[in-house]
Amino acid sequence: MKKGIPASPGYAIGTAFLKKEAAIRIGEETAVDIAAEQAKFKAAIETAGIQLAELREKARLEMGEAAAAILDSQLLFLDDPELTGAAARRIEMNQISAARAVRDIVAEYVAVFAGLEDEYLRERAADLRDIGARLLANLTGTGDDGFAGLPEQAIVVARDLTPSDTAQLDKAKVIALVTDGGGPTAHSAIMARTLEIPAVVGLGDITATIRSGDTLIVDGCAGAVLVNPDPPALAMYRGKKAGFEAEREQLKALAGAPAVTKAGKPIILAANIGKPEDAGQAIANGAEAIGLFRTEFLYMDRASLPGEEEQYRAYRQVAEQMAGKPVVIRTLDIGGDKHLPYLPLPEELNPFLGFRAIRLCLERKDIFRSQLRAILRASAHGDIQLMFPMIGAMAELRAAQEFLRQCMDELQAEGIPFNERIAIGMMIEIPAAAVMADEFARQVDFFSIGTNDLIQYTLAADRTNEKVSHLYDPMHPAVWRLIRTTIEAAHREGIWCGMCGELAGDPQAIPALLEYGLDEFSMNPGAILAAKKIIINS
Amino acid sequence: MKKGIPASPGYAIGTAFLKKEAAIRIGEETAVDIAAEQAKFKAAIETAGIQLAELREKARLEMGEAAAAILDSQLLFLDDPELTGAAARRIEMNQISAARAVRDIVAEYVAVFAGLEDEYLRERAADLRDIGARLLANLTGTGDDGFAGLPEQAIVVARDLTPSDTAQLDKAKVIALVTDGGGPTAHSAIMARTLEIPAVVGLGDITATIRSGDTLIVDGCAGAVLVNPDPPALAMYRGKKAGFEAEREQLKALAGAPAVTKAGKPIILAANIGKPEDAGQAIANGAEAIGLFRTEFLYMDRASLPGEEEQYRAYRQVAEQMAGKPVVIRTLDIGGDKHLPYLPLPEELNPFLGFRAIRLCLERKDIFRSQLRAILRASAHGDIQLMFPMIGAMAELRAAQEFLRQCMDELQAEGIPFNERIAIGMMIEIPAAAVMADEFARQVDFFSIGTNDLIQYTLAADRTNEKVSHLYDPMHPAVWRLIRTTIEAAHREGIWCGMCGELAGDPQAIPALLEYGLDEFSMNPGAILAAKKIIINS
Repeated sequence: MKKGIPASPGYAIGTAFLKKEAAIRIGEETAVDIAAEQAKFKAAIETAGIQLAELREKARLEMGEAAAAILDSQLLFLDDPELTGAAARRIEMNQISAARAVRDIVAEYVAVFAGLEDEYLRERAADLRDIGARLLANLTGTGDDGFAGLPEQAIVVARDLTPSDTAQLDKAKVIALVTDGGGPTAHSAIMARTLEIPAVVGLGDITATIRSGDTLIVDGCAGAVLVNPDPPALAMYRGKKAGFEAEREQLKALAGAPAVTKAGKPIILAANIGKPEDAGQAIANGAEAIGLFRTEFLYMDRASLPGEEEQYRAYRQVAEQMAGKPVVIRTLDIGGDKHLPYLPLPEELNPFLGFRAIRLCLERKDIFRSQLRAILRASAHGDIQLMFPMIGAMAELRAAQEFLRQCMDELQAEGIPFNERIAIGMMIEIPAAAVMADEFARQVDFFSIGTNDLIQYTLAADRTNEKVSHLYDPMHPAVWRLIRTTIEAAHREGIWCGMCGELAGDPQAIPALLEYGLDEFSMNPGAILAAKKIIINS
Repeated sequence: MKKGIPASPGYAIGTAFLKKEAAIRIGEETAVDIAAEQAKFKAAIETAGIQLAELREKARLEMGEAAAAILDSQLLFLDDPELTGAAARRIEMNQISAARAVRDIVAEYVAVFAGLEDEYLRERAADLRDIGARLLANLTGTGDDGFAGLPEQAIVVARDLTPSDTAQLDKAKVIALVTDGGGPTAHSAIMARTLEIPAVVGLGDITATIRSGDTLIVDGCAGAVLVNPDPPALAMYRGKKAGFEAEREQLKALAGAPAVTKAGKPIILAANIGKPEDAGQAIANGAEAIGLFRTEFLYMDRASLPGEEEQYRAYRQVAEQMAGKPVVIRTLDIGGDKHLPYLPLPEELNPFLGFRAIRLCLERKDIFRSQLRAILRASAHGDIQLMFPMIGAMAELRAAQEFLRQCMDELQAEGIPFNERIAIGMMIEIPAAAVMADEFARQVDFFSIGTNDLIQYTLAADRTNEKVSHLYDPMHPAVWRLIRTTIEAAHREGIWCGMCGELAGDPQAIPALLEYGLDEFSMNPGAILAAKKIIINS
């Protein structure tokens, strides 16, 4: 049995298929025809754009928008003048072929991304490698189909799956994914969860030990792969598979059902998402809203601040996908343990008690303005709601609201449409905010309790610190008193109160939260159906 | 005008007296008579012990216990087998004179202390230098009196004042202190505050610019020294001096008066102290109790953990000095930003949310046991009360109480006396503790609110971080709600509630705290009389 990282739950028993790796050879000749190389480069970019658009449409039709959206960051790369301009300049300056320029620049960018601490950013190196390979294939004419000869009931085994690979997976045949590399946030992992097929990643050298045609058992719950298993193992895993699928079907049946308690109270079950492409999974799991749209992704996957236009497109995309259902966008929560390469922040002794989120935005009005304008503009295209993180003092909330009002005035003066009655809420994640919830409730349209930070501050215990993580106790009665205080204050002022911390999706916590009167539960999309089952039976 | 660090408030106008520096010459000859040198070393140690004991007694009679206690750490050094043993071994191994051995070893130790980050520890290098100079004077017979010829109304000017210097200051003649070096925690600063004479330290090279006989004005409030001032300056400072002294006398008159509000409620005005010798200042300012005896000093001024016996003596000393008045001893609050050279702690991302205080003690039961035993033993000699810091969960309080019970059982079995009904309290400094104050109040004999940490956690703002220190707001309504919750919970359960954070001594906060019903205010001794004035008029 090989142990890896469980990346998508479920069980599969099928036939191994090793993805074929394309071999691209690039000549090292210099003194090429520069004009011709520039033309070839331009053509390769255009071809890649067409290929990706086609692949995207195919993926959308076969697997839905979430799968299609996996290719969006590559389409953005193709549009990125910094990247394409760098390649064109490199051809000119170094007098080299387009293929060499692309290879070198992609290698340089990949090295930068892969060396970053942030797991999400590291994984984005895969997008660059993928688009680089596509451009090289177009330039050298050596691209081929790594999936030729895929059998039925195929378990794809690969060093790593590129986003292009995952977007063109034949979902009629592929029943599981197994890779040497990757982590739980890799495209292949996200795609496997979207397709609801098991995946195990980070297996090290599994491609060296498996041959196409081997019988495999993939245990996506435990992160294990069994090669050519014996009959007792097969029997056991068939049983596990049947049980898992029955449970999944049972939950699926709930996807369309309303989340109403036995007492008849309708509950909003919402999804936390980190990227526009996660919205598909939210919808698939029956989310009635996006309760937390983290916007950090827009700031992290790059070398400079995103512009207003780009943010607007991302927010609008989610608003349109949710088709009128609420989308709560949280303004930037950077700082603390989340840093940006292009935004140097001071070294802090206690970053969790430091300069982050709204504290940073109120000082960096340039960053705040472009985000608020983008959110406001997107609000013309759906039920977008705006939420401020890390509010601890009334003065901060007032300053944020005042600045938002300025941005609204600007848009109005420019004649740009937005929802003038956009709902404005705040996170309750600093103890002071919970304690003063009655006063804050008079100033906003909704609350969302961020339990991860609220617990951390209330108990003065950094949950990432293993010496005190035993003190980080989500069931501590002080936390629950603050939750109750917050919900009651919201209801007294006639606003709704949600929760977007991990506690909202915790099966042990849901019944008590219902009793406290929580109106909205926002969680990872994969946890929604299980939560609905509890709510319906409560 | 020379600007330095204000170390003791007040104004003085007098005659400069430059302390004479003793010049000690040590021969570099080797191959000495080792046995004779060992005997000389032993004799020098004994003589130093007698000299210090005499000096201590003289200081005690003339200036009180606080002044006398300044010499205690030197007496401890003389008793320290590590230090004296090292000198004896050095004589033997290097075949050198006792004087050279003492000089070398003291220099090595001083270099270590002086290089430490902790200001308090750095200042302790002065003790070592002082005892080293005394031993060298005894060994070479070159000691002399640096204060010979002291005039009336003398302003002592020195590079630095040794603890021996400060302990033998002729308080009938000396009206101010002025030094090149030192900080506000230097012995000379502490002594000046005890004697209530102004002091300015850290003046750089004032000894090079002043001659004995110069007329000086010392402004201990602003940290300034004027040399041979002109008549207008003299007139102005005579006025300031008169005003300051009138205010001080007025407050002094309150020292013996009870702290009772106009409504007739008696208030306990208590002192926060960091070392046994601070108790004298507490008493002089009319403290009716020690509301917070920080015990970290016992752990900081050294290279290894203190033993039970040494701690017992320190606690007992304060208990006896306070003569039956309450002495609240807080158990060790190390970790966070306070580290010990001999107790390696893990590097933490957010030390304020990390492994400190009771969290550390409950894991290092060896450290906790010797402290609890020492406190219990001292409780036989006065009204010692015990307080646990950083309690956030009931399980922690229970574990601490359970362990205390074990220590009591041990002492009982050993037939060692202690107060079996010793009062046990807890700090309220984690938001969870304030929120759950009603439940905690049933388990302890008293609360003491630690506002510095409570504010920091409640507002999620590290007050030492200048990027967010504007958010550290002691007047935030959430902080005041938690204070009120805590006081009311205490009173409902019939226990008293005190406060030992900075807010307790803040003239702006005291009237509101009285209204909330706070029973005990514990603060720096120097703030007590001003607080009493407010209380009497409230």
